[in-house]
Amino acid sequence: MSLSNISRDTLADPVALASRLIACPSVTPATGAVFDALEAMLVPLGFAVDRFLAGGAPDGPVENLIATRSNRPGPHFAFAGHLDVVPPGEGWGSDPFTPDLRGDLLYGRGAVDMKGSIACFVAALSQTPDCPGTISLLITGDEEGAAVHGTVAIIERMRETGLSPDLCLVGEPTSVHRLGDMVKIGRRGSVNMWISVAGTQGHVAYPYLADNPIPRLLRILSAIDAIRLDEGTEWFQPSNIEITDIAVGNEATNVIPAEARARISIRFNDRHTGEALTQRIRTLVEAGGGTLEAKISGEAFFTSPGAFSALVAGAIRDVTGIEPELSTTGGTSDARFLSRLCPVVEFGLNNATMHKLDEAVAVADLHQLTKIYAAIVERVARG
Amino acid sequence: MSLSNISRDTLADPVALASRLIACPSVTPATGAVFDALEAMLVPLGFAVDRFLAGGAPDGPVENLIATRSNRPGPHFAFAGHLDVVPPGEGWGSDPFTPDLRGDLLYGRGAVDMKGSIACFVAALSQTPDCPGTISLLITGDEEGAAVHGTVAIIERMRETGLSPDLCLVGEPTSVHRLGDMVKIGRRGSVNMWISVAGTQGHVAYPYLADNPIPRLLRILSAIDAIRLDEGTEWFQPSNIEITDIAVGNEATNVIPAEARARISIRFNDRHTGEALTQRIRTLVEAGGGTLEAKISGEAFFTSPGAFSALVAGAIRDVTGIEPELSTTGGTSDARFLSRLCPVVEFGLNNATMHKLDEAVAVADLHQLTKIYAAIVERVARG
Ligand SMILES: [Zn+2]
Ligand SMILES: [Zn+2]
Repeated sequence: MSLSNISRDTLADPVALASRLIACPSVTPATGAVFDALEAMLVPLGFAVDRFLAGGAPDGPVENLIATRSNRPGPHFAFAGHLDVVPPGEGWGSDPFTPDLRGDLLYGRGAVDMKGSIACFVAALSQTPDCPGTISLLITGDEEGAAVHGTVAIIERMRETGLSPDLCLVGEPTSVHRLGDMVKIGRRGSVNMWISVAGTQGHVAYPYLADNPIPRLLRILSAIDAIRLDEGTEWFQPSNIEITDIAVGNEATNVIPAEARARISIRFNDRHTGEALTQRIRTLVEAGGGTLEAKISGEAFFTSPGAFSALVAGAIRDVTGIEPELSTTGGTSDARFLSRLCPVVEFGLNNATMHKLDEAVAVADLHQLTKIYAAIVERVARG
Repeated sequence: MSLSNISRDTLADPVALASRLIACPSVTPATGAVFDALEAMLVPLGFAVDRFLAGGAPDGPVENLIATRSNRPGPHFAFAGHLDVVPPGEGWGSDPFTPDLRGDLLYGRGAVDMKGSIACFVAALSQTPDCPGTISLLITGDEEGAAVHGTVAIIERMRETGLSPDLCLVGEPTSVHRLGDMVKIGRRGSVNMWISVAGTQGHVAYPYLADNPIPRLLRILSAIDAIRLDEGTEWFQPSNIEITDIAVGNEATNVIPAEARARISIRFNDRHTGEALTQRIRTLVEAGGGTLEAKISGEAFFTSPGAFSALVAGAIRDVTGIEPELSTTGGTSDARFLSRLCPVVEFGLNNATMHKLDEAVAVADLHQLTKIYAAIVERVARG
């Protein structure tokens, strides 16, 4: 398979394009061949391709790609996504990195999350060569992993080079039952916190010589468990705190342990910030005699329903006949970073098999999604 | 060193006897050579020796020894103890199983806990050949380990053979700062409990699809932590509950775990039984949605201060000039089993180095303890 000469027919065929991307193993963090394959598709379509590496071990190096095509003056529309995939795991019916077309389905790791969507980006752009304005593709190799050297680095690179999209569509697999049934206009933010309470080890027969940290940790965790952050908003579920782990690590039945630790995970809506939540929990933990470390995975993002979401919904409706639900459910995505730049929505394939064994995309969905993406490009260009 | 011919001088010398016992490695559970060595000491002193094995892997086999010497009618007095030792660990100044006399100290694993005491039993009995009544030695190889095939099996064996002591002294190292400063007239009981709460695993982004068991465990543990079992008694510290471990074992920050577990350890005085405490905690745990397993290590024992403790204290005072404190502190010992048969007190060497590296006994203490034990035998015989 030569990458250097791709026919016009292939560039318009999302199944063929998705197959080429799936054939390049790219477990997160990804670099190299899978980006070569994408670049080989974009150059014939008139895109200028800027690839750069970011980060080092253990979270990198990561490859990132910014492709741009500018025609006449007009709006700058960006497609965003990732070429890295989660590890395939054991037990597939076919090799996860050998695209396998069986019946109506194309199997392979990344088929829906989200090499399939990126193939649809390309196929849609092969059909819309003359739209006014700027089209860019913002593609990272680090979405499924630490996500520290991916889209964040792309945004920094765009800032340096003066690129600034007006609208952005992230191609994550948002559809639930049928292609087109859900568009994400927001995601909750996420922060993990590690709580530690120190005590003094001792023997259970001599409790007055020891200082058991567990009762203090219990009081801290009970106070955290009693918190109700909010009742939800018009568009968001209530923010939620889960205590996800408690670890003392004391195997000896007759020993009072020296330390007790716990971990909590907060998914929060746009009424909160990761930093404010961290301060609130830290105050509580420190008052209870513990210490806290926090890692904000992402702030909440929300693109108020408006012209852009209506445009995307209209394209979906015209192609599929389905009226998509505008949702803010689910985990985090790179939209949390891109939403700092411009309105962002997420729309892509059916997510039923994402991150699972035998990940597969319906061939019909690839063709439909290509039509939807092309319709979105055209509608944005029309202004 | 021949075991078959031990001189009268050696049999009266607790340092020589302790050295012979230390020279036989006997990490718990113990069998064989160390019992051969003890039998070789007891036979010349007129004792009938009954040795038997009990139990199998992993807690056994365990060797037990019952030695008896009956003269004229009179009270039956028993010395009790163990020949097994805890593992020596790394970092000794001399080989732990090569008795090493340096200066005023005899080094070796078991020097104070409790081969030294057993040597003093023998030396004391070599000096009291004609006391009326019955003297027995109840010696197990399973006190430091599971303690299921040791003294319990000895008691069963005595029941079968009609042996029934009237008074028993356990030679555990009870002295704290100086030989003679503490006699134990009771010990708290001990029960460990394992609590488990089941839930439904899920993703933190979809808490309504999961059921986090941690909040339920927190409520159960908070209720347990609030319990005050008693205020102590004239002779006992308050009973105490320690939460010694919590384990969820969830490494994934975005996963709600399926199970949460905890372990508690209760040390209780003679106002409680292990069974009643288990029932009380079980009721609380089950009401909170958890399950409980319990293992009673031992019930509390208490020998009311009276004629026997006064006799032992008098012997100590006469030899050392010290008035011993009658105490119920510390961990469990085999006295918890023997106390079902007759009044039991515990008295032995200085426990400063027990279970530690470079365990050592003062040579002077071995001689003093021999005198005390001999005085106790004589006083019991006088009635
Ligand atoms: Zn994805
Ligand atoms: Zn002991």
